[in-house]
Amino acid sequence: MSEQVRITVWNEYRHEQNNPKVAAVYPEGIHAAIAAPLREQGFEVRTATLDEPEHGLTEEVLAATDVLIWWGHMAHGDVRDEIVDRVQQRVLEGMGLVVLHSGHFSKIFKRLMGTSCDLKWRESDDRELLWVVAPEHPIAAGLDQFITIEHEEMYGEHFDVPPPEALVFISWFSGGEVFRSGCCYTRGAGKIFYFRPGHETLPTYHHADVQRVIANAARWAAPTTKLLRVFGNTPAHVKQG
Amino acid sequence: MSEQVRITVWNEYRHEQNNPKVAAVYPEGIHAAIAAPLREQGFEVRTATLDEPEHGLTEEVLAATDVLIWWGHMAHGDVRDEIVDRVQQRVLEGMGLVVLHSGHFSKIFKRLMGTSCDLKWRESDDRELLWVVAPEHPIAAGLDQFITIEHEEMYGEHFDVPPPEALVFISWFSGGEVFRSGCCYTRGAGKIFYFRPGHETLPTYHHADVQRVIANAARWAAPTTKLLRVFGNTPAHVKQG
Amino acid sequence: MSEQVRITVWNEYRHEQNNPKVAAVYPEGIHAAIAAPLREQGFEVRTATLDEPEHGLTEEVLAATDVLIWWGHMAHGDVRDEIVDRVQQRVLEGMGLVVLHSGHFSKIFKRLMGTSCDLKWRESDDRELLWVVAPEHPIAAGLDQFITIEHEEMYGEHFDVPPPEALVFISWFSGGEVFRSGCCYTRGAGKIFYFRPGHETLPTYHHADVQRVIANAARWAAPTTKLLRVFGNTPAHVKQG
Amino acid sequence: MSEQVRITVWNEYRHEQNNPKVAAVYPEGIHAAIAAPLREQGFEVRTATLDEPEHGLTEEVLAATDVLIWWGHMAHGDVRDEIVDRVQQRVLEGMGLVVLHSGHFSKIFKRLMGTSCDLKWRESDDRELLWVVAPEHPIAAGLDQFITIEHEEMYGEHFDVPPPEALVFISWFSGGEVFRSGCCYTRGAGKIFYFRPGHETLPTYHHADVQRVIANAARWAAPTTKLLRVFGNTPAHVKQG
Repeated sequence: MSEQVRITVWNEYRHEQNNPKVAAVYPEGIHAAIAAPLREQGFEVRTATLDEPEHGLTEEVLAATDVLIWWGHMAHGDVRDEIVDRVQQRVLEGMGLVVLHSGHFSKIFKRLMGTSCDLKWRESDDRELLWVVAPEHPIAAGLDQFITIEHEEMYGEHFDVPPPEALVFISWFSGGEVFRSGCCYTRGAGKIFYFRPGHETLPTYHHADVQRVIANAARWAAPTTKLLRVFGNTPAHVKQG
Repeated sequence: MSEQVRITVWNEYRHEQNNPKVAAVYPEGIHAAIAAPLREQGFEVRTATLDEPEHGLTEEVLAATDVLIWWGHMAHGDVRDEIVDRVQQRVLEGMGLVVLHSGHFSKIFKRLMGTSCDLKWRESDDRELLWVVAPEHPIAAGLDQFITIEHEEMYGEHFDVPPPEALVFISWFSGGEVFRSGCCYTRGAGKIFYFRPGHETLPTYHHADVQRVIANAARWAAPTTKLLRVFGNTPAHVKQG
Repeated sequence: MSEQVRITVWNEYRHEQNNPKVAAVYPEGIHAAIAAPLREQGFEVRTATLDEPEHGLTEEVLAATDVLIWWGHMAHGDVRDEIVDRVQQRVLEGMGLVVLHSGHFSKIFKRLMGTSCDLKWRESDDRELLWVVAPEHPIAAGLDQFITIEHEEMYGEHFDVPPPEALVFISWFSGGEVFRSGCCYTRGAGKIFYFRPGHETLPTYHHADVQRVIANAARWAAPTTKLLRVFGNTPAHVKQG
Repeated sequence: MSEQVRITVWNEYRHEQNNPKVAAVYPEGIHAAIAAPLREQGFEVRTATLDEPEHGLTEEVLAATDVLIWWGHMAHGDVRDEIVDRVQQRVLEGMGLVVLHSGHFSKIFKRLMGTSCDLKWRESDDRELLWVVAPEHPIAAGLDQFITIEHEEMYGEHFDVPPPEALVFISWFSGGEVFRSGCCYTRGAGKIFYFRPGHETLPTYHHADVQRVIANAARWAAPTTKLLRVFGNTPAHVKQG
């Protein structure tokens, strides 16, 4: 069913080239690790990275993208504003957007949320349990009651985002924190999903359940309709008495 | 794609037998008029009516139903409470429910909403325009900016339901009223959609856009996942320090 | 400011009379422990219990109640349906309702939610941290980032309630669970707040922060307006062309 | 009760100086017409306009503002980005924001919404009825079932904003359109209310019900709590086992 959904996985792709620890976990980049299992499920997947021309996000690429997946961390400021404008415009027109982990601080996510998107964090030895709080939601399809990640960076509340329209996951951390880890939004005609896990030094994107959530989210965020949004000056729709 | 969704269309089926004006519009019953276009789209459709044993809603029928569509009006009180219990239980387990028009006062809808579900109404010569306010929503797929119904009964605010989790349509009536005409809810694992139009003396269910909305709603309300909801006493999920 | 808010604290009041362990913590009943700090803040407070005539919830009492606080556990089934009808009617008319802890399984809460209100639980030695996830919400006014309760019964997800309209608290438990512990709803003209803590054998209602939340919730749930809800047959509001 | 709420009414204040028709309706500016009835109710009110230094929105003014009311139309582009940054920051910290009518296209509103905020419009001879769909909401306090405005500019759906967290008003227009005219949002610790009416050539801000809504909205949007939002690196809140 999902073969017609066209995904672009965008990755900053700097940590992998600068930090051997990250390269050891993701030798071909985080984008490659995310893309591979999506391809196996029949999605049409391309990747794009920061240092390509136009960050790999040309008008042509975006026009041919149903769902954009976003991972960034150390170089949010290097993303050019005109590319952010372009991505935002495509989201409003209906392209889905899945923002991962440290992408909470990306320009595009902050732009679409209108808030600081700030949070608490700790690089430590936390265990994370992601509890499903909306078991009926398509993004939770096929999961057990919770996902266990043995080692992850902690993100804690308060998470400065608008109240999510649907909340799918809440994380429990062994250090005592909780986090709204799966948050759904609508902006214009576009569906947005924020998903928390994915620290660059840890093998989170090799975790089968994490891969499943990303695939579910891509299906959910893909546009379901040819949109008809009409704005501007208009004559009356009925004759006024 | 939708052939695997199994729909049961439930109809009170009294007006059609008592009122020649209704029978003229729906000679085989409102349920038949709703079922036919769904079958054409590949849904597996059965019908059930009030005066059948167990109102046609046996355990077996409900177990084999993904989405239940409900039309009732003059005999809400004749629906037995144990059948309402059974339907509610199935909704909580994941069966979708599409409630039409005067079904706002059905026992099952009031049970799931927790409110009076009361509203204003007028049988007159109103024209209704149903404006799409969530064009990205799957229930609006394929529609124009609004649906025109030349003659309909008016339903007006205040509509005493909980704030919908998503609002898809707002109706405009020529007599000066508005109404939240397409309301989405979650109850347990079940998705619920209330859709306003459908007065029994008018050919509303022969309207192509109304048929399209009902089909879209059935697709949307169908369960997307095998549910894993676990309740009750539980040991600790991690070892406590 | 709050002297005009009239609160009725309802308590089942059975554990305290049957279980010396509970009586040791709440010698005059849980209702008395909840009522006292509210009175100190200037609320007008009365109490009512299950074994009084009409469970202490006569028409007169409810008519003079702005906010009803509800604690029940072992005797939900003893609450008579006609009293539940009466309380529901008053909530729809605008009375606030604050449901505490095991009240999640009360008839009135299930009636207003439309779901099973089921959850996971464990009587153990859990520590609970209630994190504020909506720091701007009036119910969180004056709190620190989280509330610490050294010993509490665990309640875990999945909590089978409709998605809250606002989520104020998420609990972390040392045994590995999370819970949506502060949930806001509207039903009719009434505001409803569910607040998780309060196991009968533990001194939770003597905790200053818990008392603060209950007072904040009472202020928030109190009706702010004389309501004008008009239903039924109506002439056109404008002349139809 | 409201004397401690400090309001700043911001107005572009260009139409009034360029267009005699507008000056005839609002001889001292739209800001003065909005401010006067608020002062009568005991709010502490100042005004600020586009052509003042820093648009009248200095750090000092904003620090002393609990709720900012915003009217703009023809000169949105003249509002400097650094002032928009400053206002956004204050909203996230807890300042309320009430955006009126054509302010839907202001930089600050688009910034906080993340969408185009586009809509349909018509300057014609429409009658507008604003129906209360959330009669229990504090912003609707004291109103009848609907507000009648004999002549107004039409705004029609689709209104490209995120789904409101609470929807208080829906407008009916005689030309056949509907509009979500009273929309509540949270961004950071700030509460935001968008209210539709107020075309510059019409005496809408002299309408008693419109004045009442603006006063109610200011009360609702005022911060209720000293905020404690803590972000950044943090040690574990409990000892990890």
